[in-house]
Amino acid sequence: MNGAQSLVRTLTEQGVDVCFANPGTSEMHFLRALENPRMRSVLCLFEGVCTGAADGYYRMKGTPASTLLHLGPGLANGLANIHNARRASSGMVNIVGEHSAAHLKYDPPLMSDIEGLARPLSHWVRRVESPRAVAWDAAAAVHKASEYPGRIATLILPGDTSWQDAGETIAAPRAHHWPMPPDAARIDHIARVLRSGEPTLVILAGRATRGRALELAGKLKAATGCRLATQFFTARIERGAGRVALERIPYAVGPAVAYLKDFRHIVTIETTEPIAFFSYPDKPSLLKAPGTSVHALVEAGEDGAAGLDLLLDALDATTAAPVLQPRAEVGVPTGMLNPASIAQALAAALPEDCILVDESLTTGRETMGLTIGAAPHDLINNMGGSIGYGTPVATGAALACPERRVFCMVGDGSAMYTIQSLWTQAREGLDVTTIIFANNSYAILKAEYANMGAGAPGTRALDMIDIDRPRIDWLSMAKSMGVPAVAVDTAEAFHKAMTDSVRERGPCLIEVRL
Amino acid sequence: MNGAQSLVRTLTEQGVDVCFANPGTSEMHFLRALENPRMRSVLCLFEGVCTGAADGYYRMKGTPASTLLHLGPGLANGLANIHNARRASSGMVNIVGEHSAAHLKYDPPLMSDIEGLARPLSHWVRRVESPRAVAWDAAAAVHKASEYPGRIATLILPGDTSWQDAGETIAAPRAHHWPMPPDAARIDHIARVLRSGEPTLVILAGRATRGRALELAGKLKAATGCRLATQFFTARIERGAGRVALERIPYAVGPAVAYLKDFRHIVTIETTEPIAFFSYPDKPSLLKAPGTSVHALVEAGEDGAAGLDLLLDALDATTAAPVLQPRAEVGVPTGMLNPASIAQALAAALPEDCILVDESLTTGRETMGLTIGAAPHDLINNMGGSIGYGTPVATGAALACPERRVFCMVGDGSAMYTIQSLWTQAREGLDVTTIIFANNSYAILKAEYANMGAGAPGTRALDMIDIDRPRIDWLSMAKSMGVPAVAVDTAEAFHKAMTDSVRERGPCLIEVRL
Repeated sequence: MNGAQSLVRTLTEQGVDVCFANPGTSEMHFLRALENPRMRSVLCLFEGVCTGAADGYYRMKGTPASTLLHLGPGLANGLANIHNARRASSGMVNIVGEHSAAHLKYDPPLMSDIEGLARPLSHWVRRVESPRAVAWDAAAAVHKASEYPGRIATLILPGDTSWQDAGETIAAPRAHHWPMPPDAARIDHIARVLRSGEPTLVILAGRATRGRALELAGKLKAATGCRLATQFFTARIERGAGRVALERIPYAVGPAVAYLKDFRHIVTIETTEPIAFFSYPDKPSLLKAPGTSVHALVEAGEDGAAGLDLLLDALDATTAAPVLQPRAEVGVPTGMLNPASIAQALAAALPEDCILVDESLTTGRETMGLTIGAAPHDLINNMGGSIGYGTPVATGAALACPERRVFCMVGDGSAMYTIQSLWTQAREGLDVTTIIFANNSYAILKAEYANMGAGAPGTRALDMIDIDRPRIDWLSMAKSMGVPAVAVDTAEAFHKAMTDSVRERGPCLIEVRL
Repeated sequence: MNGAQSLVRTLTEQGVDVCFANPGTSEMHFLRALENPRMRSVLCLFEGVCTGAADGYYRMKGTPASTLLHLGPGLANGLANIHNARRASSGMVNIVGEHSAAHLKYDPPLMSDIEGLARPLSHWVRRVESPRAVAWDAAAAVHKASEYPGRIATLILPGDTSWQDAGETIAAPRAHHWPMPPDAARIDHIARVLRSGEPTLVILAGRATRGRALELAGKLKAATGCRLATQFFTARIERGAGRVALERIPYAVGPAVAYLKDFRHIVTIETTEPIAFFSYPDKPSLLKAPGTSVHALVEAGEDGAAGLDLLLDALDATTAAPVLQPRAEVGVPTGMLNPASIAQALAAALPEDCILVDESLTTGRETMGLTIGAAPHDLINNMGGSIGYGTPVATGAALACPERRVFCMVGDGSAMYTIQSLWTQAREGLDVTTIIFANNSYAILKAEYANMGAGAPGTRALDMIDIDRPRIDWLSMAKSMGVPAVAVDTAEAFHKAMTDSVRERGPCLIEVRL
């Protein structure tokens, strides 16, 4: 068995059985090792698709996927979505091919400082030093990536460690990681805060926005009258009819400050107090009112459900009955497409148990609240702010959950960063409905230009914001990569296109002409 | 004047008057400053297009362009083509937006270690510490980028330094950098080598493959009988009829070793001795024969023309008459497309003074030699090996030389990395003819799989190499971004499509179906 075979065997033994790959010459032995039928390898035409797909996979599956990247530049192409995954606490194992040790001293063209490129965005970086170390190092990478919450592990694999004899490898035990329990000392204090009856906002994030933790949060609200919210962006929320509803702290600084101003207390679970996404002249970074106290119930990396359990115990409220979101029976909207009719069409069309990946920025920003009474679904948001995350994350989520349809709402500007995702969706026959909100503009920047106090954009600034010369022809774009597509310009056509897309397996694209 | 205005003014005063931009919220004041009519800003839909375009611009113009990138992830998206530019010794000034200093302590979502990401591939990195330092720092960045040979300078611009008052800036003197003269002590030794009559290969690179240095190399050959070659990849060569012809050392290890085996001496000018691009089991990294001596006439960063002048003086050969490449009158080929007929069509169709950007990998690799007798042209190659360089470099080269048509030969696999270039070409009306060699495969990897000793690829390995499910529809791809396109499947149709493309201004795409 050579090093590459040892690597693939170790990965699969450790439960990593998907590889999003964009290989090159230095990874040919890894490619050969992928003949191992326990590993599913998925080809992506750009590395940002690989790493974004690994992020989406982790968010839905809770275990890391692997990526295969070609030397330093291949890793570099994947870094923006590694940044987003890191901010979402998604685990992944990046395998980065490298020249053989003996070749490096000649400074070949593709050589670069791979560790240097990997470190700023990885929690763990290791270079394999010998073929016999591959199994050990690969198991260590999976263990690191599987820590709670997920971590970015990057393993650098020189060619010679890949093709030389690795001996017989001994299977390492599988990684099992559990979150830390929260500090019990905080519980009584926070219980007192909640008993005071003073206005309190509980902000949930991480794994506390789904499953049992979400239900416990609903009990807390029922028992104490606190309000429940998320940050504007959350890695994954279980929402819709039958779930405990969470409010959403607005994105823009003004509305966020107004939303938060009357709370005397903020209690955080797996997150920190709300901050502005960007800094602006004459606007605050911290969004809470000056007199508001912040109490951390559960830190990131700790167990949100355990913290809520302890708190409900302390409040003697374990039997409280959470209020659940009723199904909002909305009709099919007709007429002009605008934020309200788009949201109504979504609420009416989203099928039960679908996954909604949101990178819609301007179009979706104001209206997602209107879909809270839709059929139950998972909502996924961009945690790192680097655009081009949506279509890759949707790709990985669809692979993780082959029985669930994924709707990926994405602005036209964002979609162009990693549009190669469509090809992988077509190749793998993934059930992804990509919804392009085509406003022919980085529309969010128009608002941000004013927010920054730069006034109204002049002609040259608008040239850097509008992307309407030429208009992107989304039907042709989808066709070029084998994805069927339709364009809509009314609310009823948008609704019909979404419901149509559920009827057949495989990907499709809807261009929403705004 | 605020910091952003001071920055744009300083850049233009220093001669940097093009900015390839992909801005975000933190760069709104820079956008406003771009209203300065002396700066041409060019919007790119992905950062890899920005940095690749800056590379292409430098190769043709010899002075740096600037890029505008959005925080760490925006820089990350541009790194692969920064790697390629660095390896080509292309200078560029990267402006990376950043949060205000006061906002960083809250660890906002888009925060990352920008210096950490920039350093592995930049020669110079600086963070602007105050608005009044902007002009000084920007001038320093341009000076660094303009060093001989070109350098990568990365300037990090926090929001507050951009929007705060920068005072009145004093114009810094413009950067002027000259190459170092080569060490005269080497000259006599190398003159003795050449006088010995022993078989000698002179390898040229950097700026020595064009202009006066190239002519001097022709004299050297005429006077001494040495042979002249380039590495397989060269940043830019002036070639074709009327120029001194340079041989090309083959890419694959076996043919390269065979090519080099009979030379007793290798003399290098602005490069090093030939090495293998990758490392392979049981193949050497150094390609020369064991008994061959290597002599560095001119190191990288030194002046190739000056070294050749001194050497010709020492040999008393300044009046030798170089042999110039005659125009090969090839007819228009007909029939099947294969490497020979493709090369013949190119040789017949390339117009005088065009620019040929080559990222054709398998298709172009064996046949470029057949175009040596074409009309005079510039040939540009990928120096860093990270694919996805071709279409952005062609974009930048076309902007640098608006009166010359650019032909960009690119494999389908490579083209998909940075295909967003087509949109910028359409927007700016650039005279670029993109030639897609559509073999529906990372064909080079099939050869490399065997070269690596991995045997014949199995089904699953082939799945990672063939990109034929689905086939990319290049006519639709071009249409989606506003570029007219045609598909050809005969040599005569390919020739006609190329000559047609020269008749009208603006970009077009030719899909060559293989």
